[in-house]
Amino acid sequence: MADFLVTGSAGFIGSALAGKLVAEGHNVVSIDNLSTGFRKSIPEGVNFIEGDCQDESIINKLNSYQFDAIFHIAGQSSGEISYEYPIYDLQSNTQSTLLLLEYALNTKCKKFIYASTMSVYGKQPDIPVIEEASTFPKSFYAVGKLASEYYLEIYSKYNIDIVALRLFNVYGPGQNMENLKQGMISIFLSQAISNKHILVKGSPERFRDFVYIDDIINSFTIFLGANKPGYQCYNVSTGVRTTVHDLVQKILAYLPYEVTIEYSNPTPGDQFGIYGDASKIQNEMGWTHQTNLDDGLKKMIEWYQSTIL
Amino acid sequence: MADFLVTGSAGFIGSALAGKLVAEGHNVVSIDNLSTGFRKSIPEGVNFIEGDCQDESIINKLNSYQFDAIFHIAGQSSGEISYEYPIYDLQSNTQSTLLLLEYALNTKCKKFIYASTMSVYGKQPDIPVIEEASTFPKSFYAVGKLASEYYLEIYSKYNIDIVALRLFNVYGPGQNMENLKQGMISIFLSQAISNKHILVKGSPERFRDFVYIDDIINSFTIFLGANKPGYQCYNVSTGVRTTVHDLVQKILAYLPYEVTIEYSNPTPGDQFGIYGDASKIQNEMGWTHQTNLDDGLKKMIEWYQSTIL
Repeated sequence: MADFLVTGSAGFIGSALAGKLVAEGHNVVSIDNLSTGFRKSIPEGVNFIEGDCQDESIINKLNSYQFDAIFHIAGQSSGEISYEYPIYDLQSNTQSTLLLLEYALNTKCKKFIYASTMSVYGKQPDIPVIEEASTFPKSFYAVGKLASEYYLEIYSKYNIDIVALRLFNVYGPGQNMENLKQGMISIFLSQAISNKHILVKGSPERFRDFVYIDDIINSFTIFLGANKPGYQCYNVSTGVRTTVHDLVQKILAYLPYEVTIEYSNPTPGDQFGIYGDASKIQNEMGWTHQTNLDDGLKKMIEWYQSTIL
Repeated sequence: MADFLVTGSAGFIGSALAGKLVAEGHNVVSIDNLSTGFRKSIPEGVNFIEGDCQDESIINKLNSYQFDAIFHIAGQSSGEISYEYPIYDLQSNTQSTLLLLEYALNTKCKKFIYASTMSVYGKQPDIPVIEEASTFPKSFYAVGKLASEYYLEIYSKYNIDIVALRLFNVYGPGQNMENLKQGMISIFLSQAISNKHILVKGSPERFRDFVYIDDIINSFTIFLGANKPGYQCYNVSTGVRTTVHDLVQKILAYLPYEVTIEYSNPTPGDQFGIYGDASKIQNEMGWTHQTNLDDGLKKMIEWYQSTIL
């Protein structure tokens, strides 16, 4: 039994990760500001602190704890929304990381695992991107996450093992289906089921790499037993290139009624296409995705329909 | 006659730039928090606002102005000090930039010129670095400046002409001679003249590209008349590779008494060596350095000795 901090446990990924750790018998403390997550999503058993991770007075509430690992998942997580409140994005995604790294250093926490993003890559050639690729962050969100990665690397010099996971497009049961600015699959599914109509912002030729939530959670937890000194950065991706057109067609195929499609202008800073080479995390950690897009979509549709019945 | 905002007019570069603009008959407003600069350095005629550029309430004091250009020079400017207060560094160097860019957008200011740094490059091959080189920011300072550059690029999409000047090692009359954590030449000169002893933190084989203050100021003002739409980034460098050893020997040669030298450990995040290819700013803007290191050092020693008499 170990002691963990999981920030963002009211959100999609943080909730699933905290739930798994609690289920395994660990002590989990969490900070969440409930800005986009839901109180009801926080798993039972989590010791919950409401507040911003970018707020020093909130981080100070952790001073009585000694964590075996910190998972920093909280943060404004939409490229599109980052254009509405750039300062909030910087504080939520970057200042929070700095404060938590300082906290880790001060409390001699030896492991720090960070939810980064494929958005740091920006425009890339149409091949599976590798971790060594040059980064071209295009949104405020991407800039803030990349700056956080650089901070992680600095703190790894202080004898903290630090991992940045560059998550590709995460989807699955538990995703916020009411936020129409975040999560391509959740947006499309929500529209398709609620309105029988999907509004696609941007070209159908764009492509993504969709990773199922359970696979994402595994990519975090495999590092708990690992001996990976210093700073490491990994793609968490499937390597499968799926166009927006193909995604929409799959959604239509799994729904028992007719859904219409409409295409409009892209959102600012959106990436045209990206998919990720997962060789590094596979070779070093044995991680590969277990759920393909078809199976994941079916599970997600089943889950969503059960929640709205 | 035009209206300009020059942030950091109590500091080395901001003071010289504001002084030149005032002397040319322009209206200059400035924000400075006097954290490392001096009130007496603010040129006469500058409309001075005391406060932090990262403080929204201070930026709001500018709401009655309409600037023809904004020069954002203020910020924590030491790689070494950025390790002491990482959060302050982020706010001072990055949040400030975001707030000023938002302000420029809201007030339809069409020109924004930013003091960036060669520190964004990090470790590079031993050749003059060009602007397209991959960046490897190693200090909190470098991360914050690079994040600012990315923000500048985003805002240039909103019809603001934006320039980031990657300043190499700036030196000359007016530099803060009391701050022993910032400015290689000012530190060495101050030690040599005050103590007859120079403590060099790091290897004598390290190398730098030293640019005289008047040349730096010219690199800012040449953009006022220029038509450079979008985002542009330039090295402001001489292309001359000077080792720390050679610098120290030059200082000794220009001082009329014996000075001893001592070498110790490097400061964290310090770059081993960097010098810059200035072809881009030369070809596009006709800028080249006018003062070589020997002449600049002589002027600086003369100035410093006159201030302590």
